[in-house]
Amino acid sequence: MIRDETFEPACPVPATATDMVQLAHGSGGRAMEQLLDTVFRPAFGNPLLDRRHDGARLVLSGPLAFTTDSYVVQPLFFPGGDIGSLAINGTVNDLAMCGARAQYLSAGFILEEGLAIETLRRVVRSMQHAAAQAGVAIVTGDLKVVDRGKADQLFINTSGMGVVVAREAIEPQRVQAGDAVILSGDIGRHGIAVMATREGLGFESAIATDCAPLTEPVLALIAAGVDVHCLRDLTRGGLASALCEIAETAGLSINLVERDIPVREDVRSACELLGLDPLHVANEGRFVAFVPPGEAPRALEVLRRFAVAEGATVIGEVAPAPAGRVTCRSPIGGTHVVDRLAGDQLPRIC
Amino acid sequence: MIRDETFEPACPVPATATDMVQLAHGSGGRAMEQLLDTVFRPAFGNPLLDRRHDGARLVLSGPLAFTTDSYVVQPLFFPGGDIGSLAINGTVNDLAMCGARAQYLSAGFILEEGLAIETLRRVVRSMQHAAAQAGVAIVTGDLKVVDRGKADQLFINTSGMGVVVAREAIEPQRVQAGDAVILSGDIGRHGIAVMATREGLGFESAIATDCAPLTEPVLALIAAGVDVHCLRDLTRGGLASALCEIAETAGLSINLVERDIPVREDVRSACELLGLDPLHVANEGRFVAFVPPGEAPRALEVLRRFAVAEGATVIGEVAPAPAGRVTCRSPIGGTHVVDRLAGDQLPRIC
Repeated sequence: MIRDETFEPACPVPATATDMVQLAHGSGGRAMEQLLDTVFRPAFGNPLLDRRHDGARLVLSGPLAFTTDSYVVQPLFFPGGDIGSLAINGTVNDLAMCGARAQYLSAGFILEEGLAIETLRRVVRSMQHAAAQAGVAIVTGDLKVVDRGKADQLFINTSGMGVVVAREAIEPQRVQAGDAVILSGDIGRHGIAVMATREGLGFESAIATDCAPLTEPVLALIAAGVDVHCLRDLTRGGLASALCEIAETAGLSINLVERDIPVREDVRSACELLGLDPLHVANEGRFVAFVPPGEAPRALEVLRRFAVAEGATVIGEVAPAPAGRVTCRSPIGGTHVVDRLAGDQLPRIC
Repeated sequence: MIRDETFEPACPVPATATDMVQLAHGSGGRAMEQLLDTVFRPAFGNPLLDRRHDGARLVLSGPLAFTTDSYVVQPLFFPGGDIGSLAINGTVNDLAMCGARAQYLSAGFILEEGLAIETLRRVVRSMQHAAAQAGVAIVTGDLKVVDRGKADQLFINTSGMGVVVAREAIEPQRVQAGDAVILSGDIGRHGIAVMATREGLGFESAIATDCAPLTEPVLALIAAGVDVHCLRDLTRGGLASALCEIAETAGLSINLVERDIPVREDVRSACELLGLDPLHVANEGRFVAFVPPGEAPRALEVLRRFAVAEGATVIGEVAPAPAGRVTCRSPIGGTHVVDRLAGDQLPRIC
């Protein structure tokens, strides 16, 4: 579990104009070159990036996975993480969900004029750290600056590539009736960490994001020969939206047992305070795996070897009908339909 | 040459809230699914994207090129193009500059709450058209929404992958003293088209962007066996910044002949009016190629077969020293040093 005990939510205030991002930093000229040389290249430098060309030349063999995500989380810094670590782990995890080991990432930055260079530097260092932890290299990048008031400090896009390790496709279409639904751990921490920081609630220091790379437990499952039908990380929209999407794409039904879904007590209280359902709250280090029921015990045994998945547990199963429906059985025996997140209760969570 | 005779700079004004992008469209729930189904999937649909997973699974063989760019151009629509066509061609061209044929693109959208859905639809259609023209598929994507006033209508990131066709690396490090510097056509049109529209200058309809895919002329050069040492498309910072960057990376000098650099008369006049040097103005369909001097005539012959490079011409040559210097000989015989764009004269041009 990642915890940042030295969480500093405040962004540094630039003392002079030269400590701030300026429009000229995005114009492709001398100022941009200087910013690349002082902030980005020292952090991300590697033999591919250092070629300084319009793109990176890579040699990869086998089927590849390719994915993209933009990150607009607000605030930029929150307990246990920041937009930088999110931008690395989010994309690494999307590749893991394809049964692939992330290898190469791109990084595209959109900066607001006036952003403190020190804030940018802190984000870039966090990306450097997260990339090293996940074993990926940033091999190509882009930098744009927009005028003051036309963006919100900074946005990051990362796209990623990796070689697919799984021999069979891992995708919603392979889910089958009878599959066990495994959840890799407790849910709701990322969303609550961000919301609590944004709203200035008192419990923010106690609940840190679960943001972490998921490559190792996922590849271990595959290496152990578990016939993984589908994987999905639980980001925006939470567990509920992920399962609704899979049920609809697969044309099957998913039935959950509420008391088997781990939610920490402090997260549950925060959800009540904020009027949120933990099933809808975002995570950045949690995933679901659909496996044949007979393989569930072994899958759990493999997953629990990893700190990031030590809380893995079966939370439900797949049924043949009705197509696209997700239900949840409450502790007192009632069953309700689980729907996707509706409305905008949780904007800019990643 | 691409010209849009039906240029409509105005963005539609949404009549009701349901015609606008809302925060809920970015929350990963039902509203997002509905926007994907009505705007994005009908335009971009292909068997890979339609798998609806966290990433696309691709089979590619050979060395690959990988690149990324974010697009923040303002205004979104300008004569001959828009942010959508730019987002496709810009990334396709970065891959072409690596000697690669673009095949797969990702598309990440950051939308401002309140954006007219019709504006988004128009941009998406333009991307669809440009992707078809360039022969690329959008195989994975992402959508975020930020609150009103926290972005400027919409930003797009595209990342791209393609197989490298060139056997030798095409990069600044391979440039040699004596190389001929070939420019693929007249410069400055894209920057002037955008600036004139933004500033509301009268000549905007006469000068259209040069935005176009460059894959075909570049791959024809390679197929013809021309030993291309380096390629670079002339985007932000224009011809001057591209050449300065290459001269610095290669540790060589580049000497240009001003009268050999094609600039249209109307572009030259607009530059004078706006106080800009055409060498610093952005292009989106122009590139430089560095080739051994003996191969320049054949390179020109190949390039001129393509409409997008019919104005290809030799504009200078590479000298051994001083390292990193670019000079330009004026028609009256004087020689001045060409520097990168300094300052922020041309913000948000791509």
